[in-house]
Amino acid sequence: MTEPAPSRTGFYPGTFDPVTSGHMDIIERAAGVMDRLVIGVAENRDKQPLLPLEERLLCLRTDIAPLNEGRANPITVIGFTGLAVHAARTHGAHAIIRGLRAVADFEYENQMFGMNQHLAPDIDTLFLMAREGHQYISSRLVKEIARLDGDISGFVPPFTRGHILKRLRG
Amino acid sequence: MTEPAPSRTGFYPGTFDPVTSGHMDIIERAAGVMDRLVIGVAENRDKQPLLPLEERLLCLRTDIAPLNEGRANPITVIGFTGLAVHAARTHGAHAIIRGLRAVADFEYENQMFGMNQHLAPDIDTLFLMAREGHQYISSRLVKEIARLDGDISGFVPPFTRGHILKRLRG
Amino acid sequence: MTEPAPSRTGFYPGTFDPVTSGHMDIIERAAGVMDRLVIGVAENRDKQPLLPLEERLLCLRTDIAPLNEGRANPITVIGFTGLAVHAARTHGAHAIIRGLRAVADFEYENQMFGMNQHLAPDIDTLFLMAREGHQYISSRLVKEIARLDGDISGFVPPFTRGHILKRLRG
Amino acid sequence: MTEPAPSRTGFYPGTFDPVTSGHMDIIERAAGVMDRLVIGVAENRDKQPLLPLEERLLCLRTDIAPLNEGRANPITVIGFTGLAVHAARTHGAHAIIRGLRAVADFEYENQMFGMNQHLAPDIDTLFLMAREGHQYISSRLVKEIARLDGDISGFVPPFTRGHILKRLRG
Amino acid sequence: MTEPAPSRTGFYPGTFDPVTSGHMDIIERAAGVMDRLVIGVAENRDKQPLLPLEERLLCLRTDIAPLNEGRANPITVIGFTGLAVHAARTHGAHAIIRGLRAVADFEYENQMFGMNQHLAPDIDTLFLMAREGHQYISSRLVKEIARLDGDISGFVPPFTRGHILKRLRG
Amino acid sequence: MTEPAPSRTGFYPGTFDPVTSGHMDIIERAAGVMDRLVIGVAENRDKQPLLPLEERLLCLRTDIAPLNEGRANPITVIGFTGLAVHAARTHGAHAIIRGLRAVADFEYENQMFGMNQHLAPDIDTLFLMAREGHQYISSRLVKEIARLDGDISGFVPPFTRGHILKRLRG
Repeated sequence: MTEPAPSRTGFYPGTFDPVTSGHMDIIERAAGVMDRLVIGVAENRDKQPLLPLEERLLCLRTDIAPLNEGRANPITVIGFTGLAVHAARTHGAHAIIRGLRAVADFEYENQMFGMNQHLAPDIDTLFLMAREGHQYISSRLVKEIARLDGDISGFVPPFTRGHILKRLRG
Repeated sequence: MTEPAPSRTGFYPGTFDPVTSGHMDIIERAAGVMDRLVIGVAENRDKQPLLPLEERLLCLRTDIAPLNEGRANPITVIGFTGLAVHAARTHGAHAIIRGLRAVADFEYENQMFGMNQHLAPDIDTLFLMAREGHQYISSRLVKEIARLDGDISGFVPPFTRGHILKRLRG
Repeated sequence: MTEPAPSRTGFYPGTFDPVTSGHMDIIERAAGVMDRLVIGVAENRDKQPLLPLEERLLCLRTDIAPLNEGRANPITVIGFTGLAVHAARTHGAHAIIRGLRAVADFEYENQMFGMNQHLAPDIDTLFLMAREGHQYISSRLVKEIARLDGDISGFVPPFTRGHILKRLRG
Repeated sequence: MTEPAPSRTGFYPGTFDPVTSGHMDIIERAAGVMDRLVIGVAENRDKQPLLPLEERLLCLRTDIAPLNEGRANPITVIGFTGLAVHAARTHGAHAIIRGLRAVADFEYENQMFGMNQHLAPDIDTLFLMAREGHQYISSRLVKEIARLDGDISGFVPPFTRGHILKRLRG
Repeated sequence: MTEPAPSRTGFYPGTFDPVTSGHMDIIERAAGVMDRLVIGVAENRDKQPLLPLEERLLCLRTDIAPLNEGRANPITVIGFTGLAVHAARTHGAHAIIRGLRAVADFEYENQMFGMNQHLAPDIDTLFLMAREGHQYISSRLVKEIARLDGDISGFVPPFTRGHILKRLRG
Repeated sequence: MTEPAPSRTGFYPGTFDPVTSGHMDIIERAAGVMDRLVIGVAENRDKQPLLPLEERLLCLRTDIAPLNEGRANPITVIGFTGLAVHAARTHGAHAIIRGLRAVADFEYENQMFGMNQHLAPDIDTLFLMAREGHQYISSRLVKEIARLDGDISGFVPPFTRGHILKRLRG
């Protein structure tokens, strides 16, 4: 006979400045793989983000709302300062979730994984590959395209798109 | 209140010719992340393996036995022909598990993932990065070192090591 | 006033064993960029191809026929032995055309380009990146999937698909 | 009989801060492959360039002058703001031209290509590999070497070299 | 009969902001391979280092002291401005020493090597691969972890660790 | 006062089937960095080399002869079976020497280095980057070009070139 499975919590950290369609794809799939999913938005004071933490939280919460309909354990979105592994532990996560698009991602994540294994050996990291149509989307390029008056629909979810346009065009 | 979590099954496919310490590390960690884990050993007739399928199954089953002690849902090892996504579905898996060591792995797995998404869009793949001390171990190099009379302990689990030495020096 | 532009010929060499949807995408785009396009199918005796040269020529010629409708200078398909740069010159090409999917392609093509610049400095190479949905398709994986009874539609053009299935299943 | 070939226009965008010998090599080869070539210099206000746009235009126009001798359709150099694909369309280009030196270039260009295919599916991108002796030259390293009083001849064309030295040493 | 071997001097340049356990590993191994080793600390005014040059020199000199015990030709640490190849020549070095951790390092070093071969063809570069446990350590990540109150022991040598903590929390 | 430096021996292992201009460049530079250099030619029975071990030894010995003129400790060439680290130790080497051309080399060498550190922690490996004009040369491509009747001068040293042509054309 099979024992009842434990409830598994994943922690998906990032800057989400802004959240992209690529992030949305990872969130949806991670929510399918884990029982509970916490999205952690890093404050990241040094990097001078386009959107302040509060607006990034608002964008994520609004754009993931449709994913939570009918979901027993809704996906939650929290802000954090400090290390991602510490925030993961605070929120009871068993694993960190990260997306992989290209070789440069792989190398950066490999380095972070090595560091994190030293800082918190009990928290593993699960990687999901970007799916077709999401491999080339990055927050950095989205911001650059928006600043140059390019069309960012298709690269970011709907509420976030409107929010960025308001921000940039005032 | 939290609903009882569903039981999640992972399928870890490979040739395992032979199983290495790197595979063992992925198996142990995947078993920690999933409720049930099925290891699928591909027959791989074309590649002329060092060990026939039956011996690869024996090596894996013997060397994973310690991991199953006290485990509610023991890890199982099965042989398969055909596509990994088909075998995953046959065994009721929700996700395929794969390890990543280096950039070349990433690129190959990225290609396989793209193919698999077309063949079976409902089965996702979870990737685990090789941990320190396992990044340079490959079945191919283990076989080469064994053939050149090098010492393979540390690169393969104990039963497998003895089995290979008997095979090669028999 | 603008002089009449010279007619530019591109040479797209490969083994095409079999031609994939990824190759078809490169052919269509190369035909849009060049005035004339010659597809060169390398005989490749050493690699023991799945399909003999004559059948690879037949597949390509049949599957590219729709692209030639209404085209002033139809795309042609020829077989060749020897070096691609020699065949390019024989067929009056100004440039070799090659597709790029991933880092491993880039590295191999970079090496070939360096060699070709020594062998024929007058023939340059133009690279096209694989488009979304074609980055993970390779002849090697298509053959492997077909051999394992997987569904290869979507990975190869229609005539080629039928031809491979006949070949493999008798 | 062969129809008269259409006139093909390429658009080679970049920051050119400063133009390097590597860029000059791509320009010369792109001008050989396309009937008309427009070099687009991005204003790039955010990056705080070493040379203002007007000086980058002057450097390029002066250093490409020898390439235009006897050329039916002279290479032109224009400045632009906004997205490269929009500028390419404004200037009637059929294709964007980009150079590739190393894996990091490939990955960045792959991402840009994916983005551009969404923003302007009708404009393709042609890539040329850096030739021997140009693979390691980057505008960034040239600026660093110049600032550290190193010798930059061989890395930039002659007028540009003199211009940078005047700028830095006043 | 064998002639007396010439004395070989290596120059290991870097920013060392701060020196990491990875740098320490390269220093120890380079000192084993060369007869004399000079560590060159680049002033790097533009990058706004965490530690000023004087403190980086102090950290290195204190933390390498144990390596110099009983060593005929002690490892020396000097500060420099200008190009590394010029500093190498000033200090009588026959070769520059550099560590390699990942593909991104390889690409950057490849570019620097190409540039340096033009600037100083007589000075070669010897590369050492990072050993197990050092591949993921970078000065940049160490600083980030320290700023986020993470534990950096294990990533930097002992004196440097104390010095950084005093600096950041002082 | 400075102690007399110890005599340092490097071991440069490979298959050298055939030796290329790229290998020759590494040999010359390694001989400048080390006091003694031993070139180890792996027998490599499994790979079905183009040239048998005896001919590869002959090619190397003949083509390196000019490098040994006036050299106190002549470069020697030996054949070996078994592991490279074992052969290095047998020949009294302090370090293995390897060349790096591209990312794929880096990854393979990184894996070998990790394995070798386990098998023989006392033997380090020194890497030299391929210089301009040698980055794209590989024994595999040289053989392919020779078989397809291409011109291999410039890719292999003179004696080796004549030897291969005799072999292939009888």
